[in-house]
Amino acid sequence: MAKIKIGIAGYGNLGRGVEYAIRQNDDMELVGVFTRRNPDSVKLNTEGVKVYSMEQAKEMSDKVDVMILCGGSATDLPEQTPELAKYFNVIDSFDTHATIPQHFANVDAACKETGHVGIISVGWDPGLFSLNRIYAESILPTGKTYTFWGKGVSQGHSDAIRRVDGVKFGIQYTVPIDNALEQVRSGNQPELTTREKHLRECYVVAEEGADLAKIEETIKTMPNYFDEYNTTVTFMEEEEFKAVHNKMPHGGFVMRSGRSGEGEATHQMIEYSLKLDSNPEFTASVLVAYARALMRMKAEGVVGCKTVFDVAPAYLSPLSGEELRAHLL
Amino acid sequence: MAKIKIGIAGYGNLGRGVEYAIRQNDDMELVGVFTRRNPDSVKLNTEGVKVYSMEQAKEMSDKVDVMILCGGSATDLPEQTPELAKYFNVIDSFDTHATIPQHFANVDAACKETGHVGIISVGWDPGLFSLNRIYAESILPTGKTYTFWGKGVSQGHSDAIRRVDGVKFGIQYTVPIDNALEQVRSGNQPELTTREKHLRECYVVAEEGADLAKIEETIKTMPNYFDEYNTTVTFMEEEEFKAVHNKMPHGGFVMRSGRSGEGEATHQMIEYSLKLDSNPEFTASVLVAYARALMRMKAEGVVGCKTVFDVAPAYLSPLSGEELRAHLL
Repeated sequence: MAKIKIGIAGYGNLGRGVEYAIRQNDDMELVGVFTRRNPDSVKLNTEGVKVYSMEQAKEMSDKVDVMILCGGSATDLPEQTPELAKYFNVIDSFDTHATIPQHFANVDAACKETGHVGIISVGWDPGLFSLNRIYAESILPTGKTYTFWGKGVSQGHSDAIRRVDGVKFGIQYTVPIDNALEQVRSGNQPELTTREKHLRECYVVAEEGADLAKIEETIKTMPNYFDEYNTTVTFMEEEEFKAVHNKMPHGGFVMRSGRSGEGEATHQMIEYSLKLDSNPEFTASVLVAYARALMRMKAEGVVGCKTVFDVAPAYLSPLSGEELRAHLL
Repeated sequence: MAKIKIGIAGYGNLGRGVEYAIRQNDDMELVGVFTRRNPDSVKLNTEGVKVYSMEQAKEMSDKVDVMILCGGSATDLPEQTPELAKYFNVIDSFDTHATIPQHFANVDAACKETGHVGIISVGWDPGLFSLNRIYAESILPTGKTYTFWGKGVSQGHSDAIRRVDGVKFGIQYTVPIDNALEQVRSGNQPELTTREKHLRECYVVAEEGADLAKIEETIKTMPNYFDEYNTTVTFMEEEEFKAVHNKMPHGGFVMRSGRSGEGEATHQMIEYSLKLDSNPEFTASVLVAYARALMRMKAEGVVGCKTVFDVAPAYLSPLSGEELRAHLL
């Protein structure tokens, strides 16, 4: 059977993750990487695959089955996904929750005009966490859903730390608070404040001679980012920082505490959690599985923009229906 | 909008659970319960709903949108689901893993002959656990999947205890072993023996004058049921037994320890768990959500037998696509 031809648009951490994930799936092959940088400056980890400029993409619509977009949600994807959907079936990990409806409409219009399929907001949140929310809430309509993130690196908060005067290097970990998780598991359906749910741990290398007390105070009181949380700031030497804080772990929990039965007196608890040693690599693995699903839906005549909610689980697997029923059901 | 008309075939713990779950879903109504007992002997918990004999079912095919079968997998469902599929769209919780392919074929043939939709093996295992296996294995193709059950009551093992000479009342809890869960979470991908994964806790009320040592020995060495496990047997008074061991809790874990990235060196951990205070009520809640999905698929022209693998998550929810994207994605 012909392999699914994947293109990668944008070659940062996520794009490299997609490149590695493709190797783990025998029914897929990487056919090209598209970049806004000078293609000659980009070195891939896969022999024999070419790097193209983003402008060349439109000339290659017959060479790529699914284009996986690996840019950022702030400025890249809102423009790139609808644009590339004119030439390709597309998948992205758009994660700005508030503007998903607008992004969906833009990608849907582009896909419908050209007969393509797009699947947006694929990853783990949005993505697998969303799936767990919809399954759990559909099955236990009376109840309360909780999402916790971490322990993991928040890029936005790390960037905010690095903008503080006197900070040379900085990283921020979002940490779910154990006591909050335990309260949810108890079935009490607590109302938890922002401060009760997550802790923010910051690790900072200060510039020589910087005022450490002032850096700590500035971080802890920073509006929107830190002021509503209990925050710790730990200063350390550059060498140790680079040895310890060079990974992008993340994860989190989706929990549904529901009630069933006579008088809704019975407690039922559903809990889903991820512990990811690499956030971009895991997101990449999800994107690649949905590329397979996209091709299955395409073969059935589906056109337009979809999300993980619209994709039957069987489409994600390389196994046949018979194999799935015999071995995974 | 017209409500989805649900029939319940079989009114034991699961049937009563379905009855209560329907109340939690505004778009559904219970229109009848079908039983092999004398209908006059069955008292429902819902005012104004009638009890019919199983034989009367076939005359009511135009009154019921979805028949939810609440019988057992050993002898009831293999006969009832294909038979009722001649007259109704059907959903069951068939859970004999080894014979799912045969059951699927039987229900599929009956559905296709009459234009109905059937969804079999709906519940939590098979069911939600199966979904977690397919999502996790599709996303992390390199890795190992573990399923643990409990802490919860195993009906089969409880029945086995009760057949031992001198046992008046008995119940068995399957308990996942913490150390095994921790080993899996560590990412070592251990090979675990049956004995290392689960413990079997038995609580027994003995007949007056029975030989307790002999009961304990008989249970612990029982082939297929207990001999491959570490088993505890605790004797207690009837009064305490009835006060403490009168519920049907269950649950368990599906865990995928996977590897991604360069050289597959990165560990990624997915964990799903259920802690159910009532196993039958939770299974019932899953069945009812899939009744909604069935009607959506039916409206799209789907015919034949399906499983949870074939059902797009959006079909389970009463919310529209717009609402889902805005609030749950």
